[in-house]
Amino acid sequence: MRDKSFLMIPGPTPVPESVLLEIAKHPIGHRSSEFSKILENVYANLKYVFQTKNDVFVYTASGTGAMCAALENLINEGDHVLCLVLGNFGNRWAKIASSCGAVVEKIEVDTGEVIDPEVLRARLAQDVNKEIKIVTLTHSETSTGAANDVKTLCKIIREHGAISVVDGVTSVCAMECKPDAWGIDVLVSGSQKGFMIPPGLSFLVANDRAWELHEKCKHPSFYFDWDAYRKSTRANSTPYTPAVNLFAGLNVALEMIKQDGIENMNARHKKHAMALRHALQSIGLELVVKDDNKASHSITSVLPPDGISVPDIRKIMKEDFDIVIANGQNKLKDKIFRMGTLGFVCDRDIITAVGALEATLYKLGYKFELGKGVSTAIKELA
Amino acid sequence: MRDKSFLMIPGPTPVPESVLLEIAKHPIGHRSSEFSKILENVYANLKYVFQTKNDVFVYTASGTGAMCAALENLINEGDHVLCLVLGNFGNRWAKIASSCGAVVEKIEVDTGEVIDPEVLRARLAQDVNKEIKIVTLTHSETSTGAANDVKTLCKIIREHGAISVVDGVTSVCAMECKPDAWGIDVLVSGSQKGFMIPPGLSFLVANDRAWELHEKCKHPSFYFDWDAYRKSTRANSTPYTPAVNLFAGLNVALEMIKQDGIENMNARHKKHAMALRHALQSIGLELVVKDDNKASHSITSVLPPDGISVPDIRKIMKEDFDIVIANGQNKLKDKIFRMGTLGFVCDRDIITAVGALEATLYKLGYKFELGKGVSTAIKELA
Repeated sequence: MRDKSFLMIPGPTPVPESVLLEIAKHPIGHRSSEFSKILENVYANLKYVFQTKNDVFVYTASGTGAMCAALENLINEGDHVLCLVLGNFGNRWAKIASSCGAVVEKIEVDTGEVIDPEVLRARLAQDVNKEIKIVTLTHSETSTGAANDVKTLCKIIREHGAISVVDGVTSVCAMECKPDAWGIDVLVSGSQKGFMIPPGLSFLVANDRAWELHEKCKHPSFYFDWDAYRKSTRANSTPYTPAVNLFAGLNVALEMIKQDGIENMNARHKKHAMALRHALQSIGLELVVKDDNKASHSITSVLPPDGISVPDIRKIMKEDFDIVIANGQNKLKDKIFRMGTLGFVCDRDIITAVGALEATLYKLGYKFELGKGVSTAIKELA
Repeated sequence: MRDKSFLMIPGPTPVPESVLLEIAKHPIGHRSSEFSKILENVYANLKYVFQTKNDVFVYTASGTGAMCAALENLINEGDHVLCLVLGNFGNRWAKIASSCGAVVEKIEVDTGEVIDPEVLRARLAQDVNKEIKIVTLTHSETSTGAANDVKTLCKIIREHGAISVVDGVTSVCAMECKPDAWGIDVLVSGSQKGFMIPPGLSFLVANDRAWELHEKCKHPSFYFDWDAYRKSTRANSTPYTPAVNLFAGLNVALEMIKQDGIENMNARHKKHAMALRHALQSIGLELVVKDDNKASHSITSVLPPDGISVPDIRKIMKEDFDIVIANGQNKLKDKIFRMGTLGFVCDRDIITAVGALEATLYKLGYKFELGKGVSTAIKELA
């Protein structure tokens, strides 16, 4: 039905009406005192959300832009970068590092698995000459729904003396993620995820250790240059013309997050992800990430039952129930489907999603105890 | 008065209601067939607007992002780049080229002046070893309101064998600008200008000669990489998550431009700029660009009358008449004010702007024949 579509993909995610209406307002001048006021509020609230004392930069760019903003401000040609890879987005760090001229080494794990801290510790122990300057990792891997233990991994990286660069694109807001407390040196995220606004903005926070390495970077990217962004951010401004309408929407969304409380938002995402996981398991579906403790709280990847195809599931979910769920990516295409529970999602949405998926599987002839998924979700949410 | 503000700055510019309402719609998935349809339409209409057979890339980034996308896909460390500088935005090319490790040489002119083609020809004639690989230039210099003769300059650059890289941020849509017909090798523009949508998207078109140089570029920017963009653009997709709401707005705006006709849009901008210039001159104001033939059709820079300050003029225009005009930039701050007539502007707006400026100057005690500016504008527009 027209205008009824509900997004359960890993982004874009649902956007509150109050944010959409703010975005629809006529743009104001980006050098006006009114806009500077908006920026002041946005920058302060971002420090709250990121739980950091450092400046949070906002780029007019997608999440990949912020990933480039991280590495293109740190890497010199020939630098050794270790990339911890859980899937596509872990691999994206490796591609960006290569594009900067780095020597890239990867530690890769099987689909749905996460990095074993002891494997990382052992590899770094071999690096006796401290050649590894940077270690990249992914908090919530959007392509599989697996989530690394960022706190432990960053501690090991810090002990070695390397700089940790973390993709928090689908984790910030959804999962506990504390750059200052955990010693994450650079953290990036994106607007169309936990931040409840449309795509087009992305975020970066770097600490003093990262800045030290940045100062040695010979050719930082001009568009993403940290120095220009720090100077402007501290003056409640932006170096270049920002996407003013999206900033106005972000301002409203951040106020909602602040009112809600970041801890409550984290807890709600965890509750939703676990309710969804257990509901799906209760009707016999297999999850890509087996262990609850290794699961993202924003994306759940699911294998279709034997004999039922992913395209059929996605088609019926969309056509009959107006719910958009994601396919697998690359080699996982048509092998798994992914359900996002990220951002502007309430308990009702989990019951809705499980109910619609039950109806879809019922229509496709899957044999299971109808209603079992919904009742499991209801009990978990209670 | 709240919500009554009218933007006459060089961007963001006024946005049609139908575009704002489209932007306010809930985002759709960027990998959906619905969004692919929007992209197909957008890409086709951009070729019409840019009057090119080449692909037009759309970056989720501001105009400066597209400028980086140009040079970061062409320059290798040590390359010689000649920058033709009329003001701040010509200088921005020089800064970006430096950030890429280029050896940068500038030809600079006085405020309000443009590049003399014979000066360029003479400089290139000295470059007997063809060391100059790239020449950057600005079509409409936003900081002064001067406009280069891009057609003639690009012909000279082509004859020398260098690649021309043109900033069309405030010229495309507003002024005749034909990359294919004029031999512009790389042309960039931005969304919040002639395209009548809010900031956040920018455009780039490159021809085969530029692609040849790109193929020798060792470390193209990952986020702005031409190869990734060409592949995606041809598949009616984008390499990374695009600002889907802004794309939806762009789709509506491009349909408006197509219905209007690009030649008509160019002609209207010229008529408005000339009417404004002559109206201001008729009440004794001095313009930064003296010669109509060297004037931008999107921005007019004006010197305040003796004894009247730029901040006072801007303040009264805003507080009494809800019209936002721009200050000068950097060394021109408080020395000039700038009036944009770019994008969604009709004849009425020119009469309005001149009338409000007359009222402002009257209040500030400037002695002139009240009504003369408006009557001049009315006659010019007729």
